[in-house]
This record gives sequence, structure tokens and C-alpha cells, in this order.
Amino acid sequence: MKHARIRYQDKIHLATDAGDGALLLADGRRVSQDDVQWLPPIEPRTTFTLAINYADHAKELAFKAPEEPLGFLKAANAFVGHRSQTLRPTDVAFMHYECELAVVIGREARDVPRARAYDYVAGYTVANDYALRDYLENWYRPNLRVKSRDTCTPLGPWLVERDDVPDPMNLNLRTTVNGTETQRGNTRDMVFDIPALIEYFSSFMTLSPGDLILTGTPDGIVNVQPGDEVVTEIEGIGRLVNTLVACPGDTAPLSDPA
Amino acid sequence: MKHARIRYQDKIHLATDAGDGALLLADGRRVSQDDVQWLPPIEPRTTFTLAINYADHAKELAFKAPEEPLGFLKAANAFVGHRSQTLRPTDVAFMHYECELAVVIGREARDVPRARAYDYVAGYTVANDYALRDYLENWYRPNLRVKSRDTCTPLGPWLVERDDVPDPMNLNLRTTVNGTETQRGNTRDMVFDIPALIEYFSSFMTLSPGDLILTGTPDGIVNVQPGDEVVTEIEGIGRLVNTLVACPGDTAPLSDPA
Repeated sequence: MKHARIRYQDKIHLATDAGDGALLLADGRRVSQDDVQWLPPIEPRTTFTLAINYADHAKELAFKAPEEPLGFLKAANAFVGHRSQTLRPTDVAFMHYECELAVVIGREARDVPRARAYDYVAGYTVANDYALRDYLENWYRPNLRVKSRDTCTPLGPWLVERDDVPDPMNLNLRTTVNGTETQRGNTRDMVFDIPALIEYFSSFMTLSPGDLILTGTPDGIVNVQPGDEVVTEIEGIGRLVNTLVACPGDTAPLSDPA
Repeated sequence: MKHARIRYQDKIHLATDAGDGALLLADGRRVSQDDVQWLPPIEPRTTFTLAINYADHAKELAFKAPEEPLGFLKAANAFVGHRSQTLRPTDVAFMHYECELAVVIGREARDVPRARAYDYVAGYTVANDYALRDYLENWYRPNLRVKSRDTCTPLGPWLVERDDVPDPMNLNLRTTVNGTETQRGNTRDMVFDIPALIEYFSSFMTLSPGDLILTGTPDGIVNVQPGDEVVTEIEGIGRLVNTLVACPGDTAPLSDPA
């Protein structure tokens, strides 16, 4: 089953995919997918993001693959839905997309061995984890200006239930920019796979329902510009469409010490 | 006005300080502060935490004060309330408390100049931002094992309304361990003061109601042990009591690459 959260006639609804370009709202109405505003399919609680979790991407960046997952957290206002707009500051030289499989946690998870990890997964969605390279001073743990900006993490369109994805570790990913393919990979190339990530995070903290793990991106990240349509797509999970729009650069970039 | 969130007779209630050790529940009942379970006074949304934001603390760690605020985010499961227990792994050599003034955001804030910053503040509470030093490989942006563990950020007891705190930049802070004072400071010694922090974060992202800024700690951090009672106290804001209890060390500390 494919689930969505949408805004329709000024109200937020849970919905499922009714096929033929239609959505079935929780209240029984059927609406066109073109008539709604898509929201992130879940309201993320704690969001874990992985840096450098594909071997080819580590190579692209001329880094050694990490020996321990490089996890950091993301702010709530970063998320937008399918077909939304993402802000690209005009004073930034390099902003790249990142097509990522996002794992949605379904049950409280603590000290979970890898053999049981999928028991704690509710489902999957597609994330586009944009990064503003200009502000990056540390690839291993990117700062908030790089990775937690408003609108810079499109998510969706669907939450696909776990049991509808027989092998999440063998899914093709691809990104197109204005219709041209720029990134291609497969989830099998993750350095730390989904069971390893759940085992790892749950070994020192509790994962809760609604928590999200963004599992990293393969190589093929290129600079994108205002006006570009960026489509991040994962086999069997969804096709997430996003458009970049220009916005002013950061105000007050550096506060003086008080 | 001083606000609390508590659990009483299996239900969560909003409450205010009724004086004389009593709480006034939102439903009109009056209960003893000793008969409730204290929860964090707000359910934090995005939580910003500041590293090395007191000049004396930077000196204590032999660091230069930062030129830009060092902000990182904290996971939702880290928070517990007043009079709660915090887990200290038995295999860790050094765990320290950090007494911090926590600023609660009350309104959407974007591109806020410092002169208007307090307009966006709902109030203040006390945080104890424990850190597990063993896992710290980067003081500037601590990793999740150090700063986002379950129960490791007590918060409370009260949310004190902004207008009840005439000068938040001149408040004494102190920590006692089993009744002995080990940390003392004043919020005037922050490297980046509250208006600077709100100006800074809002210059590149939106702060929303319920977001929290933990403003850093002064010097005087020492190792604490299971059984210790740690009290972090800020003048006019509150006295936050916490007890350390032993827990097993992390399982699966290092996942093998898949």
C-alpha cells in the first residue's frame, strides 16, 4: 500500500494511491493527484542522515569509506513534499541534490540485532537531501547551513509499506535534472546497509515511530540552478519531483560576539 | 507565570506553579509537586545546541572562542523532566553535566535582527546537557553518542514566561553534585548572546514555536557517577534535579560494513 499526506481544500488528509493518477482520501473521497498539495508522507520526528554511505560516492569525494556510520540530525523545517519548490540562495556557487532511500521507523527500537532490524521498519520513501556546498567545512558532519535549511529536503511522494518492498537492498536509484540523467546507483552499494544502520543507532539510543533514516547517496552529484527540475527516483518506492527557485543569500551571515 | 507539563494519575497535564509546593492543573485541580511525574515543560521540536559558547569554558578546554556559533541538533528521545533519572553507561570513563539556559521560541522567526530577537521568545527553562566524553572526537560538533542519548538532557522544571525574566543575559548559573557546588557562571559570559543566536540561526533557517536553543555552559564540568544527584540551577528560572543511574554499555558499538 502506498500512503500520502496531502493538503486539499485547505485541510490536511491522509490518502492512499488509488491508481490512474487518483488519490483515495481517508474520508472516502477520490481526488486527482494534480489537485492536491503534496506534503511529506510523514511528519518526521528525529531524522538521522548519513554522510558518505555509498562506496562510489566516497571515492567521488576522494574519501576513504567510514568505519562507523556518520550520522547527523536534520531540522524539522527542512522537509517539503512532492512537487514542491526548494530555495537556492543566489549567492551560493554550488548546490547539489542527493537521491536517498529514506527508512521510516514503525516501532520503538533499542539494541536491535541486524537479523531483526526489518521488524522495526514501517516503510520507505524517497528523499532528496540537497546540500549547499559553499558552507561545507566538514564532509563527515555537515553543519546546519549545509543540510538543515528550509525546503532543502523534499520527501515523498509515497510512504510504501515495508512488506511491499521485497528487497530494499537491491533498488535502483536515479536522478534527472531537466530530463537528463545525472546520477545512477543501487542501494546494494551502501557501505552500511539498512540492518546495520538500525543496529548501530539502536545500540546507543532508542528509535521511535516516525523517526527517519536517510541512508546516503551514490555518486553523480552535480551543481543545480534556479529553474531546474530535479527528479529523484527509486525503483518501487517513488518518483519525487522538485523545482529549484532563487532566494536571497543569508542575512547576517556572521554574528559578532556579544 | 511558571508553566509545567506533568503526568498525574496516568494522564499528561499542563500546570502552573501554585506556590507552597503545589501545582494548579489546567483542569482546575491542585496537586502536590511531590505527587506528579515531571515531564519536559515543552515537547521540543527542533533543538539547537551550542558548543563552546562561554569564554571561560573555551579556555577550560584550551580552545579559542568560536567566530561563528557552533550549532548542532539534538534527538527527541534525549529529553526527560525534573527529578528524573539519567542513564550512565558502566563502560564510560567520563560523563559530565552542563548547566544551560534554554530559550523556547514562541513565534516563527526568519531574518530577525538582534534588536527584535526577544519578540520571538516564549520563555526559558533549565537544561542539563550531559555529554559522554569517551565518544567525543570533535568538540566543535559532537556526535550522536556524545549528545543525543536517551535521558541525557533533563529539562525543566518550569517554562518561565519571557516577560518574567527582565534580563536573561545576567543570570547566575550553578551546578551542585551531591550538594557540593562544582560549576558557577553567569549568562553574561556567553560568547554569542541570545539575540545573536536568534539572529544567527534565523539568518539561514526558520525557527518555529516549540524550537529550543540550548545556549551552552560555563566552565566547571566534572565527571559524575551513578548515584550522584546533580542539580543545575539558574537564577529566576528554576532548579532542575537529576539522578544518575548505571546502565550497560553500548551494544554493537561498531557495525561491520555490509
